[in-house]
Amino acid sequence: MTRRLHLALYLDDHGIHAGGWRHPRATPPGEHGLALYRRLAEAAERAKLDLLFIADKLAVDDVYGGDFGAVLEHRPNTHLDPIVLLSALSSVTERIGLAATASTTYSEPFHVARMFASIDHLSGGRAGWNAVTSVSDGEARNFGRAEHLGHQERYERAAEFLTAVRALWDTWDEGAVLADQAAGRFADASKVRYADHAGDWFQVRGPLPVPRAPQGRPVIVQAGASGVFQRLAAANADLVFAVAPTLERGVEFYRGFKRQVREAGRGEHEVRVLPGIMPVVGETDEQAREVERELRALVLPIAGLTFMSASMNLDLSRFPVDGPVPDVRDEIRGSKGRFQHVIADAIDRGITLGELGAEYAATLSFPLVAGSPATIADEFQRWFEAGACDGFVLMPPYVPGGVTDFFEQVVPELQRRGLFRTEYEGHTLRDHLGVERP
Amino acid sequence: MTRRLHLALYLDDHGIHAGGWRHPRATPPGEHGLALYRRLAEAAERAKLDLLFIADKLAVDDVYGGDFGAVLEHRPNTHLDPIVLLSALSSVTERIGLAATASTTYSEPFHVARMFASIDHLSGGRAGWNAVTSVSDGEARNFGRAEHLGHQERYERAAEFLTAVRALWDTWDEGAVLADQAAGRFADASKVRYADHAGDWFQVRGPLPVPRAPQGRPVIVQAGASGVFQRLAAANADLVFAVAPTLERGVEFYRGFKRQVREAGRGEHEVRVLPGIMPVVGETDEQAREVERELRALVLPIAGLTFMSASMNLDLSRFPVDGPVPDVRDEIRGSKGRFQHVIADAIDRGITLGELGAEYAATLSFPLVAGSPATIADEFQRWFEAGACDGFVLMPPYVPGGVTDFFEQVVPELQRRGLFRTEYEGHTLRDHLGVERP
Repeated sequence: MTRRLHLALYLDDHGIHAGGWRHPRATPPGEHGLALYRRLAEAAERAKLDLLFIADKLAVDDVYGGDFGAVLEHRPNTHLDPIVLLSALSSVTERIGLAATASTTYSEPFHVARMFASIDHLSGGRAGWNAVTSVSDGEARNFGRAEHLGHQERYERAAEFLTAVRALWDTWDEGAVLADQAAGRFADASKVRYADHAGDWFQVRGPLPVPRAPQGRPVIVQAGASGVFQRLAAANADLVFAVAPTLERGVEFYRGFKRQVREAGRGEHEVRVLPGIMPVVGETDEQAREVERELRALVLPIAGLTFMSASMNLDLSRFPVDGPVPDVRDEIRGSKGRFQHVIADAIDRGITLGELGAEYAATLSFPLVAGSPATIADEFQRWFEAGACDGFVLMPPYVPGGVTDFFEQVVPELQRRGLFRTEYEGHTLRDHLGVERP
Repeated sequence: MTRRLHLALYLDDHGIHAGGWRHPRATPPGEHGLALYRRLAEAAERAKLDLLFIADKLAVDDVYGGDFGAVLEHRPNTHLDPIVLLSALSSVTERIGLAATASTTYSEPFHVARMFASIDHLSGGRAGWNAVTSVSDGEARNFGRAEHLGHQERYERAAEFLTAVRALWDTWDEGAVLADQAAGRFADASKVRYADHAGDWFQVRGPLPVPRAPQGRPVIVQAGASGVFQRLAAANADLVFAVAPTLERGVEFYRGFKRQVREAGRGEHEVRVLPGIMPVVGETDEQAREVERELRALVLPIAGLTFMSASMNLDLSRFPVDGPVPDVRDEIRGSKGRFQHVIADAIDRGITLGELGAEYAATLSFPLVAGSPATIADEFQRWFEAGACDGFVLMPPYVPGGVTDFFEQVVPELQRRGLFRTEYEGHTLRDHLGVERP
């Protein structure tokens, strides 16, 4: 089989570019009715994407300045519960995969296992769980803790959480439900077992009250960059949402990570690696660059610093906006792997903190590709053929136009080149990704 | 305005009567795809019901005999995560209210507040949360505890949980989201506040990352019977799902409960009381009674005892099935208020434990009304006019036929009598119930 790109849509109501929500073609954010999400999901399905991906944060950001004021005034920072949104979209789509985030630090294995198994049943095998460890003290304070768990500790908890969830998913064998109405026999209880997970963080007995999921197990997605993350994902993930600001860094991550997958005793194609990328589509390259300039002019620099502060779990308001970028790499308590690169790179380039804020706000350190459909397809092809990825998570600069343009103009170009499917071939998310059913 | 009945559909994939899943017209249970749920939800909406109601239990029952074997062999005991199912149904319905269960003992206020606020946004104001305290040790063991919390303790936790959820829902004022794209102002942060809940059980800071819900606050549903429950519900609930085996007991509960509502400083119509009832519809009374006999013949007595054991959190397998009903009223650690009546009544009548099991399995102590559409409408009217209820939760004996018959035959009869709406008049669940927006 020809190797083809896998594409995911990062779904939210305001786009990723910090200027995106202010773009004249953007829908005003913060409304949160079904209509916009449904429109995006249906468009992604018409474009034959592998999956929708819904991120999460369990708090309004309030690290910058120690309050949510600067955040809520300057950028859309509201979002629905991702599992509720994903479930709502499961019944208005038919083929596209459906992945949402749930935190291993602030959830319980039983709830997470049952929710994703349930989505898998209702959607006919399209569910994926993005397992994250969360990042900020703001999240901790919504769950009775003063501070976020330390990096090492929360990855230990995450590893055990994954083990417990898998054990719960495996409590039912296929074929355990008989539903024999005449004989009055509902299930073959010998095909059901307790999970009996007992570890340092969790004791979960099971069995799950949900029969085995159509996919065997829902797809496991993980997002991150640090070394600890990579070891965990190499052993557990079916799909990795990566951050690679350049093709070179993409190749480096891809090679290193796939080596770890092999070292974990798995085939390297058992885990798909999709870096995030922000396409800005125009009829011509020049027109696309003009849109990029428009978007950049709409960025409020403070918005980027509030976002960085939250993701790093480190208040940047104590440094002057016009001063140099401070070397705070050892103080990062949030997304460590990612921001060590961002900070080091900014210090190298000698930009100010305010400039970094505006820059970061634009793309969140994801690569931005502005150009005609052919130019964007070229760039996707270049990454793919260089061995930097198995596909991409599309980060829309604004919605809906910023992503429907991509579906209508770039996807057909990728299809013409044989780089992307023209029809769904299978029915489950595992089918779309080409990863095995356990 | 004429006083009218409020009707809810108790939604699951197998009906409530223990013989129901075996009925020739019943869909085989345990499949859990969207189709059956969607069909039931759409039928309920066509019938103009107030709401769908989804119950929950956070474990496979395994109290009887200390194992799940007897349970899974003899009755459908699988069910999806109720919030996932409710969310999926939110996008394929337009007007009907949507209530699901989440446990105050085994969830976190932040998750619950955010999930129901999210459903309220996606559904345009149709969400309701059924706040329960859970019942069994099996549930406790899925959340790291050996035993379920004691009755008093879990109601203390429930009261604080409700306070915290309400505080989170109130962190956003209406109109806080500006989404002013031109000015670059997303929200008016002065209309957003921390919840800063700090109690014995929870510390939750907020604010919720979701703007104020369309209903102000989603509807609060509570289900139960004990004195402690009644005090909590009188102060908090918008809707009570009651258990009243007879009209007389219904009147007694209704009067006592509404008195407590007034004592809590609320108007008595601020809380609707809907007892569960199981209608068995036939063209004639005789035909309906024949269906009831068919259903009863399909009951496996052990199924009832497994169900009772789980709900009472008390293993009944240690008593002989052919012996008298043991007086275990003081040992009940689950649904106390309900089973004290059930046990006392069975002892009075001198039936055996096995007979009680079969009887309980049939209707779970909800009243069963078998008859022609006119007979059932008579009975509904009698309860309503006697002051036993503000409406009913319909407990289908089997699905889908057992409930679609009701919609197609009994609802029109209730409408002809002016006892039930012929069209939705408002848009939110609060509108349907006639309870005020906070």
